Amino acid sequence: MHIISPSTMQSFETIRDSIEMELAALPYSKLEPKMLFEPITYILSMGGKRVRPALACMSAQLFSGDFSLAMPIALAVEVYHNFTLLHDDLMDRSSMRRGMETVHRRWGDNAAILSGDGMMVLAYQELEKLPEQVQPKVLKLFNEMALGICKGQQYDIDFEQREEVSEEEYLEMIRLKTAVLLAYSLKMGALVAHASEEQCDTIYRFGEHLGLAFQLEDDLLDVYGDPIIFGKKIGEDIVSNKKTMLLIKAINSATGEDKQSLDDALQMTDDRREDKIFLVTKIYNRLGIRSEVEDLIDFHYRQAEELLKSLAMSDEELAPLRELLGRLQHRKS
Amino acid sequence: MHIISPSTMQSFETIRDSIEMELAALPYSKLEPKMLFEPITYILSMGGKRVRPALACMSAQLFSGDFSLAMPIALAVEVYHNFTLLHDDLMDRSSMRRGMETVHRRWGDNAAILSGDGMMVLAYQELEKLPEQVQPKVLKLFNEMALGICKGQQYDIDFEQREEVSEEEYLEMIRLKTAVLLAYSLKMGALVAHASEEQCDTIYRFGEHLGLAFQLEDDLLDVYGDPIIFGKKIGEDIVSNKKTMLLIKAINSATGEDKQSLDDALQMTDDRREDKIFLVTKIYNRLGIRSEVEDLIDFHYRQAEELLKSLAMSDEELAPLRELLGRLQHRKS
Repeated sequence: MHIISPSTMQSFETIRDSIEMELAALPYSKLEPKMLFEPITYILSMGGKRVRPALACMSAQLFSGDFSLAMPIALAVEVYHNFTLLHDDLMDRSSMRRGMETVHRRWGDNAAILSGDGMMVLAYQELEKLPEQVQPKVLKLFNEMALGICKGQQYDIDFEQREEVSEEEYLEMIRLKTAVLLAYSLKMGALVAHASEEQCDTIYRFGEHLGLAFQLEDDLLDVYGDPIIFGKKIGEDIVSNKKTMLLIKAINSATGEDKQSLDDALQMTDDRREDKIFLVTKIYNRLGIRSEVEDLIDFHYRQAEELLKSLAMSDEELAPLRELLGRLQHRKS
Repeated sequence: MHIISPSTMQSFETIRDSIEMELAALPYSKLEPKMLFEPITYILSMGGKRVRPALACMSAQLFSGDFSLAMPIALAVEVYHNFTLLHDDLMDRSSMRRGMETVHRRWGDNAAILSGDGMMVLAYQELEKLPEQVQPKVLKLFNEMALGICKGQQYDIDFEQREEVSEEEYLEMIRLKTAVLLAYSLKMGALVAHASEEQCDTIYRFGEHLGLAFQLEDDLLDVYGDPIIFGKKIGEDIVSNKKTMLLIKAINSATGEDKQSLDDALQMTDDRREDKIFLVTKIYNRLGIRSEVEDLIDFHYRQAEELLKSLAMSDEELAPLRELLGRLQHRKS
């Protein structure tokens, strides 16, 4: 066990700045062939919250006092995360991301496929920078994470085609698609900091709850977010009949007139998008869906907090993770 | 150094049968979600020569007497190779592979993208089965190989758009796209068999020459192969103006009337495909392109043989690799 001086604990912002510097120092923009690496540099420079790499570093810091131990993992998960965004945008035919054109819109489908493939390899390449003795364990976790995300994406696609999806199935899908990336980032960060197996498991479960809360918050923001702060149009999930937790809860609880209105709304075509958003939101409000989902989010944040507490570390040591937790809990975007 | 009893050296066929059994035993067909794993099982069961995994095993056998040491590498490279075929077929919009529908034709583009991504992770997952102490070195080589193939594919795409491609550029492209997979399969096989650094380098260079010869042979077979034995239509590269070594040599050496005929032929549209194949083949014949490329292939096979000799091992030990070399050298498909 390392001796940790609380005064050396770095904040989320300090860690994020450090990650941004490391990301900016990646040599991809100088590599040939240009057409393979340009889209990679492009998507990585779009920004983002950098929550996943920060979690890896904060976890390493929590268990060793040194966040930089997990920097190769931080870069690997951020590159991997952006690879999934690149291929997901292509599969969803999304035209914009963070206010910029998506890769397939700008360079074509094939460039998006191949650059994405290359990014996946680049993510694995970051793991080479870890001490050799931890690489096998990290490789195993990274593979589990990567395959879990593929499974989650497939379930997401499957659910679009299905009439009925249960809340449990939906939670399992977002666990795979979103939460495992956060959970494994934390667990790998703990591993390279030589945390105990129990600590690794606890921080993993913390990440799962955090990830579930994070994704459910995303579902809420699509309907109840402020479009200016959220940075995306409101109601996109409603327009596309996306089976979010809100819609699943509404389908499962609507009866009588509400059920009829909801069925009618789901049939509405794109030319009536404003009516559709208005109508579905009204049904959500009447059924109390918002507070149900807010309660669920609170539940997962409380579980996350409980797990943090169970680590029996000082408030100073836990401060950076709690700070991030607070930011995510009150996020508007 | 292990003591090798030559009598235990297994033939290419024995090794290939063993690889087929291991591939058939992979659990992918039982995994959920079905739509992610079905295309993976499908493409892996299409067959193929299994040259790459066999090379990994034969290399391990050469340096240790035990081909099974490299089985995780064999499976990883075969799964990775099939992932590249899956995404390449999608990018090329190919409808058939080995007499069967391609994945994107059968399940759609998105299934091909996502299943391919999943396969890439499954390839890395095979590496977990190696002894921990060799994993970091193998991971590094595997990453280099995987990124090299992405680069080669990008150059291949780039060259389609370019007016002129030199022979050197073409050779570098096929080195990356085809030869490095063979070369790294051999090198990783040698590494897990604890071969010396010099032996690893020699077997790598052997694989590069083998790979170049292999790809150039492919270019020749498109024009001069027997369609029944080749298993593909003849002249597809000609119809699509694919810049193979034959076309590059023809463009670079044709003058006067030949140059004009070639330019005319390259403008011909798909409705005149038979004329185009006939005309371009005639030009190749007149310019002596076939024997030029055959000489180049022979050169690379001779270089490969020289490198084998330089290992200073017995004929018995080298027999399995020489057998494969002979098969590839006289292949008709």
